[in-house]
Amino acid sequence: MLNIPALERLVHDLSRLPGIGPKTAQRLAYYVLRSPQEYSGRLAESLLQVHLQVHTCPTCFNYTDAEYCRYCLDPNRQNDVLCVVEEPLDIVRVESSGAFRGRYHVLHGSLSPLEGIGPQDLRINELLQRINSQSQIREVIMALDADLEGDTTVLYLTKQLATKGLRLSRIAHGVPIGGDIDYVDDRTMGRALENRTAL
Amino acid sequence: MLNIPALERLVHDLSRLPGIGPKTAQRLAYYVLRSPQEYSGRLAESLLQVHLQVHTCPTCFNYTDAEYCRYCLDPNRQNDVLCVVEEPLDIVRVESSGAFRGRYHVLHGSLSPLEGIGPQDLRINELLQRINSQSQIREVIMALDADLEGDTTVLYLTKQLATKGLRLSRIAHGVPIGGDIDYVDDRTMGRALENRTAL
Repeated sequence: MLNIPALERLVHDLSRLPGIGPKTAQRLAYYVLRSPQEYSGRLAESLLQVHLQVHTCPTCFNYTDAEYCRYCLDPNRQNDVLCVVEEPLDIVRVESSGAFRGRYHVLHGSLSPLEGIGPQDLRINELLQRINSQSQIREVIMALDADLEGDTTVLYLTKQLATKGLRLSRIAHGVPIGGDIDYVDDRTMGRALENRTAL
Repeated sequence: MLNIPALERLVHDLSRLPGIGPKTAQRLAYYVLRSPQEYSGRLAESLLQVHLQVHTCPTCFNYTDAEYCRYCLDPNRQNDVLCVVEEPLDIVRVESSGAFRGRYHVLHGSLSPLEGIGPQDLRINELLQRINSQSQIREVIMALDADLEGDTTVLYLTKQLATKGLRLSRIAHGVPIGGDIDYVDDRTMGRALENRTAL
């Protein structure tokens, strides 16, 4: 208990951020207080502006501050392959690998019967419509999380897309590059063995 | 590169927070964008209000939203013992131990010749004045960090206070409670052996 309501409110609001526990939130709040007031003002303004300026692209549902996102507008990307991701941030990870030059589609989540998240809560209908209307799409790569929800979503999409004559794939799971085999968990090792590549 | 200036600005401002690297800042920024706009508004307001409502106590330099801080105002605390800490947050840690019921003094930093932080940059003069004017103070406990700057500050304060007839002490360093001896570093173990307690 800090017994200063304004400080407690800031700690409370900061601790809603993912990965920020109550102790970290306290440390951040005290840092803010110690910093020049100008920094708080700038951060507050950035928080407000991000919602005013950024929205989702009507084609792929990535974030953008323009009418369409940069990946949809870029004339130098392949139109025949679509990478399906859960969140806009996942695009940043795929892009920084440099291994993909097609288009994206952001679902904004994954299917979770346990949490009551069904196909209608995600951008799945928009994905199906897009594939139906853009006949140049030949391949769909699913870059979804390697968890239960990711697996469920891959299964559901595979069923929905089965009759459309597309090449469907999912990104590989296995031992991370530079990873020590000693530290790999059983399920990852299982997948790595199952999906071994011929030499 | 996210290529959305409003989002990049938010990531940049968030990554100034301690312990928040660029990747964590990205994750936080995307979380903010995904959250209802009302959350951003509330966090922005908390950031602005904390500077308007909170200032330092003129006696001990802890943070407060009143004229004096709660530890200075509390009539049930001992007036004869002062705990000197580096930062206001350190008071929260000392308080939650329940092992101290005296008064506090916050230095707002520690001496660092390397970074050019001298006694005049800290609340050291105010500490000396306070000890001179409050004759009931008999003991000063230094709860400063166990690093080079903490050691330097303890040394400096000990010298300044040597002639005032006070009991001076520093909090003990050693193996943390519940800590596994295997994981304790050499210097901590050295201190733990040096400061062993008789049984």
